[in-house]
Amino acid sequence: MATLYGVGVGPGDPELLTLKAVRILSSAQVVAYPANPRGDSVALSIAGHHLPATAEHIVMAMDFVPDRRSANAAYDSGAEQIAARLAAGQDVVVLCEGDPLLFGSFAYLLPRVPTATRIEVVPGVSSLTTCAAAAVRPLALGSEPLLCLPATLPAADLARALDGVAAVAVFKVGRHLATVAAALQQAGLAEGAVCVIRASHPDQQILPLPEALHRPDGVPYFSMILARRPSP
Amino acid sequence: MATLYGVGVGPGDPELLTLKAVRILSSAQVVAYPANPRGDSVALSIAGHHLPATAEHIVMAMDFVPDRRSANAAYDSGAEQIAARLAAGQDVVVLCEGDPLLFGSFAYLLPRVPTATRIEVVPGVSSLTTCAAAAVRPLALGSEPLLCLPATLPAADLARALDGVAAVAVFKVGRHLATVAAALQQAGLAEGAVCVIRASHPDQQILPLPEALHRPDGVPYFSMILARRPSP
Repeated sequence: MATLYGVGVGPGDPELLTLKAVRILSSAQVVAYPANPRGDSVALSIAGHHLPATAEHIVMAMDFVPDRRSANAAYDSGAEQIAARLAAGQDVVVLCEGDPLLFGSFAYLLPRVPTATRIEVVPGVSSLTTCAAAAVRPLALGSEPLLCLPATLPAADLARALDGVAAVAVFKVGRHLATVAAALQQAGLAEGAVCVIRASHPDQQILPLPEALHRPDGVPYFSMILARRPSP
Repeated sequence: MATLYGVGVGPGDPELLTLKAVRILSSAQVVAYPANPRGDSVALSIAGHHLPATAEHIVMAMDFVPDRRSANAAYDSGAEQIAARLAAGQDVVVLCEGDPLLFGSFAYLLPRVPTATRIEVVPGVSSLTTCAAAAVRPLALGSEPLLCLPATLPAADLARALDGVAAVAVFKVGRHLATVAAALQQAGLAEGAVCVIRASHPDQQILPLPEALHRPDGVPYFSMILARRPSP
């Protein structure tokens, strides 16, 4: 029986691939990944040079926009092609930036493949721990809970989720920066917060939250805010 | 200037080391790690064979008990030895199970080393994403917040933290299993929850929460519960 591999390729630095990911990529027959409409894929740019030249590519090209129609169509079509390869006895390797299951795209493929599929997920280094590493700051200490919060939530839900939280990592900040900053301020979490931009990439930046807010061009989608409530 | 490296060695499977971790370990002059009172170290057992035979070992031997006196003394002594090597111009590599800064021991060393220390943290594959990979289930979907909750919190704080939460990963379950299960039940999060025991180790187990509760010997410290609120 063929296997569908969901392989985390890490946050950007090709050295943050695991030995297991490299082994599986090195013998891949069929590889699938999300890409933009021009076919460019971050995951492929991180990990592509480990793939055999003979590997067949299934490109799930989609618009990265809030409207999910383009993405859904790409996952539908990708899942159909993946299922055909699996049915023919070929393993398929899906490349996932960061980790496949922590706000990763692999979650969208899972419900689309046949239920009897044999699946193996290879965890990757996530942006969560990469941002903390870049900033050299613990995500949470001792018995503190840590909230992983997508910035894409409506403002009222952000405020509700942050109420009483000890430590937070806000994912996918991008154009939501001002809304998130206001919610952190209201929750008493803005002091000392940092914004980590493109962690582990050559152009990585770590900015205090107020400096991030003053960037004339905003911050990219791949930015994360780390904040902790000051000790009482 | 010498560098203090905090290196994540992953959750247990030696293949989940990153290429970067392997590179840094392979040329380590001085290596430090927590161990039990007999000197056994999980981090060393995962990653030790990448170390040069000539590497000097700083063993931070401690009791793994709620009373922090033994651990604090070990970190104090370890930090002193580390600072001495750094002052002599030697790099020091600290081995950390999973990731150094997501409920990792490196957070306890950070405030103990001289403030001018040059520090580089190498993120690792954390137990969080490894448990999700083992169970092949997304940690959170779409815009859902994910709460990372240490089971070591008092029961009342567990209940408060879980109120209204969409998805949760409970760390360090061990002897707190029954308390955590009751809190999840009360919060409406027990349905479909799984307990992942020793993810990525050869004896890994994934159990529905009720089955975990019926194990006569309980579950080990390195167990995690993953739960999501059913969609409305």
